[in-house]
Amino acid sequence: MECPQKEKQGKFKNAKTVAYNLLAAFIYYDQKRLMVILRMSIAELLSTFMFVMLGCASTMATLWWDFYHTPHTQVAMGFAFAYIAALEFGGRISGAHLNPCVTLAACILGKKAWAELPVYALLQFIGASVGYEIVMAFARPVDRYYMLEKGPPFCVPDILPDISQSQAFSAEFWATFFYILVLAGVWDSRVRDKIDAVSLKLGFTYLALHLAFGDLTGCYMNPMISVAVIMIGGVKPGGFFAVFFIAPVIATIVAATIYRLAFALPYHMEMENWGLPVRKPPTSK
Amino acid sequence: MECPQKEKQGKFKNAKTVAYNLLAAFIYYDQKRLMVILRMSIAELLSTFMFVMLGCASTMATLWWDFYHTPHTQVAMGFAFAYIAALEFGGRISGAHLNPCVTLAACILGKKAWAELPVYALLQFIGASVGYEIVMAFARPVDRYYMLEKGPPFCVPDILPDISQSQAFSAEFWATFFYILVLAGVWDSRVRDKIDAVSLKLGFTYLALHLAFGDLTGCYMNPMISVAVIMIGGVKPGGFFAVFFIAPVIATIVAATIYRLAFALPYHMEMENWGLPVRKPPTSK
Amino acid sequence: MECPQKEKQGKFKNAKTVAYNLLAAFIYYDQKRLMVILRMSIAELLSTFMFVMLGCASTMATLWWDFYHTPHTQVAMGFAFAYIAALEFGGRISGAHLNPCVTLAACILGKKAWAELPVYALLQFIGASVGYEIVMAFARPVDRYYMLEKGPPFCVPDILPDISQSQAFSAEFWATFFYILVLAGVWDSRVRDKIDAVSLKLGFTYLALHLAFGDLTGCYMNPMISVAVIMIGGVKPGGFFAVFFIAPVIATIVAATIYRLAFALPYHMEMENWGLPVRKPPTSK
Amino acid sequence: MECPQKEKQGKFKNAKTVAYNLLAAFIYYDQKRLMVILRMSIAELLSTFMFVMLGCASTMATLWWDFYHTPHTQVAMGFAFAYIAALEFGGRISGAHLNPCVTLAACILGKKAWAELPVYALLQFIGASVGYEIVMAFARPVDRYYMLEKGPPFCVPDILPDISQSQAFSAEFWATFFYILVLAGVWDSRVRDKIDAVSLKLGFTYLALHLAFGDLTGCYMNPMISVAVIMIGGVKPGGFFAVFFIAPVIATIVAATIYRLAFALPYHMEMENWGLPVRKPPTSK
Repeated sequence: MECPQKEKQGKFKNAKTVAYNLLAAFIYYDQKRLMVILRMSIAELLSTFMFVMLGCASTMATLWWDFYHTPHTQVAMGFAFAYIAALEFGGRISGAHLNPCVTLAACILGKKAWAELPVYALLQFIGASVGYEIVMAFARPVDRYYMLEKGPPFCVPDILPDISQSQAFSAEFWATFFYILVLAGVWDSRVRDKIDAVSLKLGFTYLALHLAFGDLTGCYMNPMISVAVIMIGGVKPGGFFAVFFIAPVIATIVAATIYRLAFALPYHMEMENWGLPVRKPPTSK
Repeated sequence: MECPQKEKQGKFKNAKTVAYNLLAAFIYYDQKRLMVILRMSIAELLSTFMFVMLGCASTMATLWWDFYHTPHTQVAMGFAFAYIAALEFGGRISGAHLNPCVTLAACILGKKAWAELPVYALLQFIGASVGYEIVMAFARPVDRYYMLEKGPPFCVPDILPDISQSQAFSAEFWATFFYILVLAGVWDSRVRDKIDAVSLKLGFTYLALHLAFGDLTGCYMNPMISVAVIMIGGVKPGGFFAVFFIAPVIATIVAATIYRLAFALPYHMEMENWGLPVRKPPTSK
Repeated sequence: MECPQKEKQGKFKNAKTVAYNLLAAFIYYDQKRLMVILRMSIAELLSTFMFVMLGCASTMATLWWDFYHTPHTQVAMGFAFAYIAALEFGGRISGAHLNPCVTLAACILGKKAWAELPVYALLQFIGASVGYEIVMAFARPVDRYYMLEKGPPFCVPDILPDISQSQAFSAEFWATFFYILVLAGVWDSRVRDKIDAVSLKLGFTYLALHLAFGDLTGCYMNPMISVAVIMIGGVKPGGFFAVFFIAPVIATIVAATIYRLAFALPYHMEMENWGLPVRKPPTSK
Repeated sequence: MECPQKEKQGKFKNAKTVAYNLLAAFIYYDQKRLMVILRMSIAELLSTFMFVMLGCASTMATLWWDFYHTPHTQVAMGFAFAYIAALEFGGRISGAHLNPCVTLAACILGKKAWAELPVYALLQFIGASVGYEIVMAFARPVDRYYMLEKGPPFCVPDILPDISQSQAFSAEFWATFFYILVLAGVWDSRVRDKIDAVSLKLGFTYLALHLAFGDLTGCYMNPMISVAVIMIGGVKPGGFFAVFFIAPVIATIVAATIYRLAFALPYHMEMENWGLPVRKPPTSK
């Protein structure tokens, strides 16, 4: 979750887009910049792949275990600890965002360049798709039958039958809202050197969110993984668009903006640390 | 749980009350002090909101899951990991006390100004009320029916039927007593730089307390959340006042006083660190 | 688990015994030494009290929950996280040994003076007795009936019916052996500054031991808590003496000696750090 | 998991083989080198012994608990927290690899000398064999009957009945692949001073892998423990060779190579830290 590639941001600003960067890198063989971009891309793709695969395999394991009863605690633990694993692998290379909402929050909080958002989202989509595809290959014949007869494929966004669309929207909104607030707190410049246990803290936060909202909507908080599993799982999401796409994005924008305005260091203090031009506030005392 | 606002304590002492501070801040536009107070207030309110909402949603999730059986381990995990999330978000801004007893202990141990106690209690009350209100909005029709017919609304202080009032009092007393002792140990000035895993340690302590006393009384340890959920949940608490209000407050006073007298650094050593006037003890060797 | 009182060891050596220290402290009013001893004693007593009370209350909670089935995972989590809480409170004051075997290992490894062993054992006995007594007061009438009719009081050392005495001995031996090895690793002078997450590591180690051996013998590893609960619980331990008293002590001596001989820093290197007289080894190269 | 013995690597290079080292150590009484080798060997053996014994005893505990139902979450927790215990004991002495695949990855990533691989594998085999043998001695008569009648001995590699050989191969491959990627991330030279919570992170990663793949193949990821338990457990592994031996080794080679090529520091930067001869890359800017 650290941002070691932060010092490259100046370079990203000089070049117009990441696409241009990649092109330039190939043409001029700017080996160092190419390596940084490639390394981050591969790490983000592999982390998302790892997260989706471990999380969804944990969900499917509840099928292998007991046919008619999905113990939600096991699913929540599966996703939360898969998150710890993915953060430990990719956190110090690409940040292991795994989620375009996280990248969006990082952009709003000034930790990432905006040009990186579409690239990260694309990589997360590819990672999630491949991961989900491989998990599906583990299904036994009896699991495939179960999926077709009894309900949707595992790990596909789903809403608890008895709740309304607005309750589901609310669940995804609040889950993402709390998630982004905690992330922003962990990213805070004042604690940049206290990152030893960061993956554990975020993992248990993830577990808390899943224990609270996992039964209602699956606690996705992630538009890109939702797209990937819906496209491959083959379900018609119906009115799911608002719940799994709009809600997390709005929650991210609200939470990151609140943190930036209310809790981040005042702009001139924060930015001096990053070597960026300073906007002096009206001096008071 | 850190106290970065500690260096503002001198200022709080100069001004008579926090109310005066707020007034003065608006009148003289003392931007810096206003920002510190506002930031702490919003963080404390949002952390309590997050904690109550995630914890109570985890409790309600046991309804969605299985109608007649509340697996207590899941509830305990829900509250404990919600505590980790709230600490990670608010810990370094407001301390994320979430509980007037914690603020009371901080005052007794000299980590907070007494004027902050009523402000924190009010913010915690508002946060808990809003959080509980929103969780209630997730209830399905069948949950509402269940709550009215079968028992009290979820997450409202309740006492196991077969135990006596004094046993319930004792459970809340000892839970709060141990909680405050551990908190005081974590706040100890000698370990001020060892705060990396503090939220995890407190989260698992919370889990231990809930596993031990959660079935007896819900292990509230928190007069303000109790008030909030009783007012909104609409139950008549009967003889619950002593158990959920008196017991935690007495336990807090006893535990914090024991820690201050027996375990905190001798007054003159502790206080030198904080830049406060020194009361010299009789020198011995 | 840290040993901040280590620098007092020189003083302990000068005085013949701790009893003499206490006496001298009262007579000469050596305020500082008295405070250190009193502080450590109260902390060790309170930590053991907290540990036994939280752990045994978690065990009893399985009664409140479900009459005929004790989910062992819940008991193991109760004790392990109670251990984290006790370490966080008492660890930096008295070391929070909670167990005479731990104090014995600390003496063998040269981290504690031998004169402290009986004092710690006595304090642990008192703390465990009081804690167990208070937990028993939480029993409902139906629990008391259950205990008398169906089996031994909760939390009393017990052996799984179908296993032999030597299997039980072996279980307690190996559990204590591994526990002391891990403790010695955590105490190692080379990692004295890496103590941030120490309580979490030891807590999860405790959980691993309980998950492995808890069903066989309860995974006591603790002669003093065993004595306390057997005396108060009122069961006749029969041939339990070897299993719950001899096995942990032998395992402690074996494990601590192996660590000291094989893994601790060579004597002259280790001891230079502590400011003690140096026994030079035969120089090689 | 740290590599304090790294500074000895130069010496290992001078001597042709570890066998020669041991011989030379005995002949010339090179006390210091002998001690380092012996210490590492005993630590690796004892850690593997501890891991296998605690993990397999946790698995067997599910027998003591409930005859016809193995709650997989308990087994996963047993192995994951046994891993934390073993890392805390042996991590700073031998690295606590416990697994020849881990040693192989360390060699590929340049953290271990290749000559140590066979020695570690042998020690791991001995530790696993002794640990499994002792756990088997805890079996009650009824457990022995159950094992003979109902299925294979506990803790022996097994494949879920309904899945194909290639699905099992795939499960072991991906589990090992993710495990080695996370390990390489934790070992990365850039985070060598952030090792405080390393055992916890790896333990929860292990838990994530077990929750995902444990039901399919047991999530062994370990050729040496597999050999040990199959030899002692006495089952004919049939076509298991590819699943439990080939899959983890291939996954290790692929993952460690990917990490080395894509994510490890560029060779000349990484190696300067270790004091090794430098291969200069073509300078770019």
